[in-house]
Amino acid sequence: MKEKIKIGMIGLGGRGMGLLRLVILNMSDVEVVALCDRYEDRQTKAADKVEEKQGSRPFVTIDYQEVLSIDEIDAVIISTSWADHIDIAIASMEAGKYVATEVGGAYSVQECWRLVEAYERTKIPCMILENCCYGRDELMVLNMVKQGLFGEIVHCAGGYQHDLRDEIAYGYENRHYRLDNYINRNCENYPTHEIGPIARILDINRGNRMVSLVSMASKAKGMKEYIKNEKSHDSELAKLDFMQGDIVTTIIKCAHGETITITLDTTLPRYYSRGFTVRGTKGMYTEENQSVYIDGSHDHYQSWNKNWGNAEEFREKYEHPIWSKFLEEGVQGGHGGADWLVLADFFESVKKGTQTPLDVYDMASWMCISTLSEDSIAMGGHPIAIPDFTNGKWITRQ
Amino acid sequence: MKEKIKIGMIGLGGRGMGLLRLVILNMSDVEVVALCDRYEDRQTKAADKVEEKQGSRPFVTIDYQEVLSIDEIDAVIISTSWADHIDIAIASMEAGKYVATEVGGAYSVQECWRLVEAYERTKIPCMILENCCYGRDELMVLNMVKQGLFGEIVHCAGGYQHDLRDEIAYGYENRHYRLDNYINRNCENYPTHEIGPIARILDINRGNRMVSLVSMASKAKGMKEYIKNEKSHDSELAKLDFMQGDIVTTIIKCAHGETITITLDTTLPRYYSRGFTVRGTKGMYTEENQSVYIDGSHDHYQSWNKNWGNAEEFREKYEHPIWSKFLEEGVQGGHGGADWLVLADFFESVKKGTQTPLDVYDMASWMCISTLSEDSIAMGGHPIAIPDFTNGKWITRQ
Repeated sequence: MKEKIKIGMIGLGGRGMGLLRLVILNMSDVEVVALCDRYEDRQTKAADKVEEKQGSRPFVTIDYQEVLSIDEIDAVIISTSWADHIDIAIASMEAGKYVATEVGGAYSVQECWRLVEAYERTKIPCMILENCCYGRDELMVLNMVKQGLFGEIVHCAGGYQHDLRDEIAYGYENRHYRLDNYINRNCENYPTHEIGPIARILDINRGNRMVSLVSMASKAKGMKEYIKNEKSHDSELAKLDFMQGDIVTTIIKCAHGETITITLDTTLPRYYSRGFTVRGTKGMYTEENQSVYIDGSHDHYQSWNKNWGNAEEFREKYEHPIWSKFLEEGVQGGHGGADWLVLADFFESVKKGTQTPLDVYDMASWMCISTLSEDSIAMGGHPIAIPDFTNGKWITRQ
Repeated sequence: MKEKIKIGMIGLGGRGMGLLRLVILNMSDVEVVALCDRYEDRQTKAADKVEEKQGSRPFVTIDYQEVLSIDEIDAVIISTSWADHIDIAIASMEAGKYVATEVGGAYSVQECWRLVEAYERTKIPCMILENCCYGRDELMVLNMVKQGLFGEIVHCAGGYQHDLRDEIAYGYENRHYRLDNYINRNCENYPTHEIGPIARILDINRGNRMVSLVSMASKAKGMKEYIKNEKSHDSELAKLDFMQGDIVTTIIKCAHGETITITLDTTLPRYYSRGFTVRGTKGMYTEENQSVYIDGSHDHYQSWNKNWGNAEEFREKYEHPIWSKFLEEGVQGGHGGADWLVLADFFESVKKGTQTPLDVYDMASWMCISTLSEDSIAMGGHPIAIPDFTNGKWITRQ
């Protein structure tokens, strides 16, 4: 096992800089030796930060192949725009580098297959950095599920319910890809924050799999009205039309009969919530009012509001071991610590030379939801088959 | 306008008796002159109750045609099993009697058309007794919407989320039709509690309409496990298999681009909620934590839990006039007063000889969701067109 690893970072926008600054540069076992971005100002800003923390200035480039050709690099982190994740991940595997990509959705099923085939050809592990799989509540609920608190799981729900109107409208100034996606596409463009934790609960790709989905989108009114009210001085923004529906609802069916409902909800005013909900034959959890309902312990005819927030009472008994340890050692990093945990787990695999905890089949099957929902919406909600990227290995995979 | 009306009641199970006892017999402007049920013990029990309250014993019969042939009867209330609602409603219209039916779903699109055609032939008003359209919160939110608090409405959600396992399992003893439905069918069997209030918000059949839906059902595990744990002594129940999925999710698309998501959720442990949610370009309401979010008034990055229950703060300003008056005069009747209001509104139309507030087009378009969801589920989530029961009149109807 390596004591210290060397990494390259590809993509240094807001997300890449956040991971670098808040997480990676605070990890004593990771050295950043190369940086890549298409914009020079970002390269410089990131290199300055690395030099300030590590004492040595990393190699910087506009060409990610130059990063991949550096022998001493053990792993790369990809935090580019969504559309580049898979191509760069494949190139990284071809170059023999462990690879972790930020989250996002796929643009075609074919690129998901290419990703899987690159792994099968090279055997280089590839991980999606789904930080929500490491959220404190998500892990507590996973622990509850695995200990049988909710009985047999029948249905799960979740959403990316995050008012991004300002961030999207700021896209051109910020050189962010979301704006162009919202102008041109209509799909569940960001499924993994909810699919990730739910996939672990339902043993997806490990004894179960997602088999089909249907998707419908509401009209697109949020961005247009937001720009009219907040950005009317910007003539370029003001003339834009948006194809992306404000609310996209997707229902997924699993091989063992479970359903998953996911919601993209990013262009209307709302409070932040991932709407994480787990339903079993003995009980339920829902993030909407942070409550746990256990069969026989509660009267379902009584108003539930006195139990809002009662999930906290289950914390002591069901806190996930990963989080017990993390709390003891001191929580660090972005997004409430989840960024730290997901990267630490990835780097641990790199150091040990083992498979990553989330693998290429997880990545392909979670990301493909975007392109499949796009197809379903385009065809009026037609059901779409979800490919089995394991080619049957899910039946016996652990 | 009539001062007092005479009615017949058809169907005297739990629901019929409840309406009779808690609502109708306490109304000074309504006289119950005929009762009908297929079981003699129910007839006797109901007739005793009527005699006790009204001083005169009503006519009782097993044959609803006998009720419809009584000249002095102005209106009939139908609270039979779901499968009989439409046939009896049609017969009532043919007999020239105002008719109100309890809620439920349709078994075919054809019976919905027959219902509509009976109205168009006879011009006798027919109302669905959707008490949730008269719920205090539903009416407050409707008032908020009509006053523009949420901006343009883009999406609504709701559910019949009610743990009915004991009631369903008790079906044979109780002579209740739900059990047979759950054994044989797989569909959104009870859509109107949520569709009703949402239809009023989205002006369905009055400038807008529901155009298509997709539906998926989870596996059916709740009833089997409930019976195993709670009713294993009952050998007849223990051998049953259930076709009805525990959670049925349906997405409906409207003519003006809005989406509606509805959930049937009746055979797993949970707290009661209709999950009523309204989303617009300026704000949202959700029953899940009884909160109102207004664009610009809240910070969407902050944890929302301090605002749980804040819908109460909007009560004074947005209480619906119907409820302000009801509260002033004293709330009466079942289901928090909603049963009183829906029946009072129906009887008011009968007395005035006017159209009912919910009409035959509402009834047909809401009830058809059941059979259409059944088709969609059977075909793996295939999108199904929702008929325009108004034949184009929705475009200009007020």
